[in-house]
Amino acid sequence: MISDVQRLRIGVLGCGNVGAALIQLVAAQCDAVEQRTGIRLEVTRVAVRNMSAPRDVSLAEGVLTRDSHGVVTDPDVDIVVEAIGGIEPARELMLEALANGKPVITANKELLANVGAELYAAADEAGLDLLFEAAVAGGIPIMRALRQSLYGEPIRRVLGIINGTTNFILTKMTDAVAEGGDADYANALTEAQRLGFAERDPTADVEGFDAGAKAAIIATVAFGAKVVAGDVYHEGISNVTASEIAIAHRLGYVVKLLAIIERTTDGGDISVRVHPAMIPLHHPLASVRDSFNAVFVEGDFVDSLMFYGRGAGGAPTASAVFGDVVDAAINLRKKTHGSLGSLTTATIKPIDETSAEYLLGLDVADEPGVLHAVTGVFAANGVSIRVAEQEGNGPDARLVFITHVAREADLQATVRELRDLDTVHKVGGLLRVVGD
Amino acid sequence: MISDVQRLRIGVLGCGNVGAALIQLVAAQCDAVEQRTGIRLEVTRVAVRNMSAPRDVSLAEGVLTRDSHGVVTDPDVDIVVEAIGGIEPARELMLEALANGKPVITANKELLANVGAELYAAADEAGLDLLFEAAVAGGIPIMRALRQSLYGEPIRRVLGIINGTTNFILTKMTDAVAEGGDADYANALTEAQRLGFAERDPTADVEGFDAGAKAAIIATVAFGAKVVAGDVYHEGISNVTASEIAIAHRLGYVVKLLAIIERTTDGGDISVRVHPAMIPLHHPLASVRDSFNAVFVEGDFVDSLMFYGRGAGGAPTASAVFGDVVDAAINLRKKTHGSLGSLTTATIKPIDETSAEYLLGLDVADEPGVLHAVTGVFAANGVSIRVAEQEGNGPDARLVFITHVAREADLQATVRELRDLDTVHKVGGLLRVVGD
Repeated sequence: MISDVQRLRIGVLGCGNVGAALIQLVAAQCDAVEQRTGIRLEVTRVAVRNMSAPRDVSLAEGVLTRDSHGVVTDPDVDIVVEAIGGIEPARELMLEALANGKPVITANKELLANVGAELYAAADEAGLDLLFEAAVAGGIPIMRALRQSLYGEPIRRVLGIINGTTNFILTKMTDAVAEGGDADYANALTEAQRLGFAERDPTADVEGFDAGAKAAIIATVAFGAKVVAGDVYHEGISNVTASEIAIAHRLGYVVKLLAIIERTTDGGDISVRVHPAMIPLHHPLASVRDSFNAVFVEGDFVDSLMFYGRGAGGAPTASAVFGDVVDAAINLRKKTHGSLGSLTTATIKPIDETSAEYLLGLDVADEPGVLHAVTGVFAANGVSIRVAEQEGNGPDARLVFITHVAREADLQATVRELRDLDTVHKVGGLLRVVGD
Repeated sequence: MISDVQRLRIGVLGCGNVGAALIQLVAAQCDAVEQRTGIRLEVTRVAVRNMSAPRDVSLAEGVLTRDSHGVVTDPDVDIVVEAIGGIEPARELMLEALANGKPVITANKELLANVGAELYAAADEAGLDLLFEAAVAGGIPIMRALRQSLYGEPIRRVLGIINGTTNFILTKMTDAVAEGGDADYANALTEAQRLGFAERDPTADVEGFDAGAKAAIIATVAFGAKVVAGDVYHEGISNVTASEIAIAHRLGYVVKLLAIIERTTDGGDISVRVHPAMIPLHHPLASVRDSFNAVFVEGDFVDSLMFYGRGAGGAPTASAVFGDVVDAAINLRKKTHGSLGSLTTATIKPIDETSAEYLLGLDVADEPGVLHAVTGVFAANGVSIRVAEQEGNGPDARLVFITHVAREADLQATVRELRDLDTVHKVGGLLRVVGD
């Protein structure tokens, strides 16, 4: 190094929305970063599958390549940004980058939620950063908050709205209910697809897989424990009906798809689950609308914290990646790195052993004795009822119950037995009350 | 070091709310931190003014001392936590600690907002951490977000509710307006004092000094520029009336004391100011109630972020301090430290050159021609009116105006001339519209 300024060369794997926005951000901010840190950031290699695809970024001759292995082994690349997604070859490329002395930045939630522990260990062994702010909640710096600011905080629970697609759909349905419009799930999904907030095959989002993967990563970082996607119980929103949203609304709640990551003392060390939930209107998470994300943290000392922002999109995600790049660049110069520390093997509390208040809607025959029969099933399973209401009558009769706090196993047994009653035509989706 | 575990000894200056909560937090969490980091944290010295004052913490024999200089020079202290507040002797003790090779953690906003640049430079020169997460917005990890996560983000503006006392008072007044109750400022202040949310002499909070100091620190960290408390224009809330809150409410706004830290391109590099503002009800800051704080960040790439939590209180503040202690401990072991980088000397845009929409209420004589005379003053100063309303009549007649975007200097000239009109009995407090 001749001058005081150190040049730091970034190799990017993938040039989709995030990769392209990152390249723009590096170009826009490299002067400002250099002025404050003395480090000159530069994107010198970009690996893509299709060399001739049209792109929004201008790159110098020779930067674009089809050879991703060449990028992670190139001695002229100092830091690798993985923006291709999926498990392989991303995993293999990241390990190769670390083995070649290059810190890695990734936004790949699927990878981390499945084989994260292997990658964190490889990074620690190499003494290099593996940073992944953008993997959870896009532009919201919740990973760094949990990794550093709250490292010593006794965290009790994290509640997250961490899927923008489902929050957009539920917001549309809720607004339609409030305005007396069409609050049908299918229509809200179609609108989300039309506006680019939902994929053509929306399964990963609407059935809670995406939120489940992010919940596993949050659990790992918040509790220093090995938690994988397969540990996360998840339900999606495709069974949530306008009628349930309307009832929740009337009772002072709003329906959100929530990720819940909780320290427990019985039945397991950690509970981690994703499901639709009724949140009281006065709770800060209740006002998180449209495709925004938010993560609410409850700790013994810090009390309540909420982090709110854009959970997806090329530019916000690139912003989080870039923060990691600057961090890794500074650490690389100092020959240091961040670490999650030793991860414990935690036991996961089975969903059957969790407890909540539940909202349950039943389509029933409108005839004498139905309420008596139905409440008998609740009682036999030890589930006590806080609110019971009838809506409509005749063939459209509907009973709505909110229980007192009950065990999930007891509630599920109740649901099974209710389904067997001749007078119960349909048992609707379950909504658990959270955040009271 | 014989074992794998490294012992790290903390010296604490001051044992008030924050110092005591920190000591409890270290005791509660030292096992968990050791398990993850291999570092054993321990409070070994605590300097206090009065050795015999009753305290909530139990300390081993010999830990308590009256000799604060002894603590910062003690070779058996590795990290110093400054929790005494004020400028001297805090400044001198921190410099002495750094000169003795000890990183310093502080929650002292007054100190940093006045002589921060000197202290950051001393820490950089010593190659040691000077961390101050708790100095702004208590338990909310906004400093680390700005220092690291958003380091490379082109931040446009930061909007902060960063004084819990005034937010509590304004929330009470707003609720009273909504419920038709007594929304008097003086009564809300009295209630805040009774509940411990306001000091007996509330000046520093209600006149915006406290928020101004925090705004200077935010500006320094967000923009890498030397900004001090004296650079910050501030107005408090003691002139905000129930009538203004009611008008704001009716028009779909809520009144908050806002700190605004903005990158500008004309009239200066940075605008930094604190004043009461009308925020649209749909803005995330509008739902920040009671003594909670929140910081809203707008960036070119990240779009919008909000950080919400407890802005004061022993335990939340101690949580932020503890996060810094763990960070400093890890850095000390690695012989590295965090840095704000080179701070530039920025020009501050004078308040007169800022622009906003304004709400202005006038007590006027209810006689023909008054509206004509008043609107003539607006017109003569180039301030155009978006909404004009009359409330009441006879001796209680009140005109309320909302302007289009106008220059502050023009608005202030308008106010001065309005005061000179015989038919204008009183010109009420100004509210600027922010966040549309």
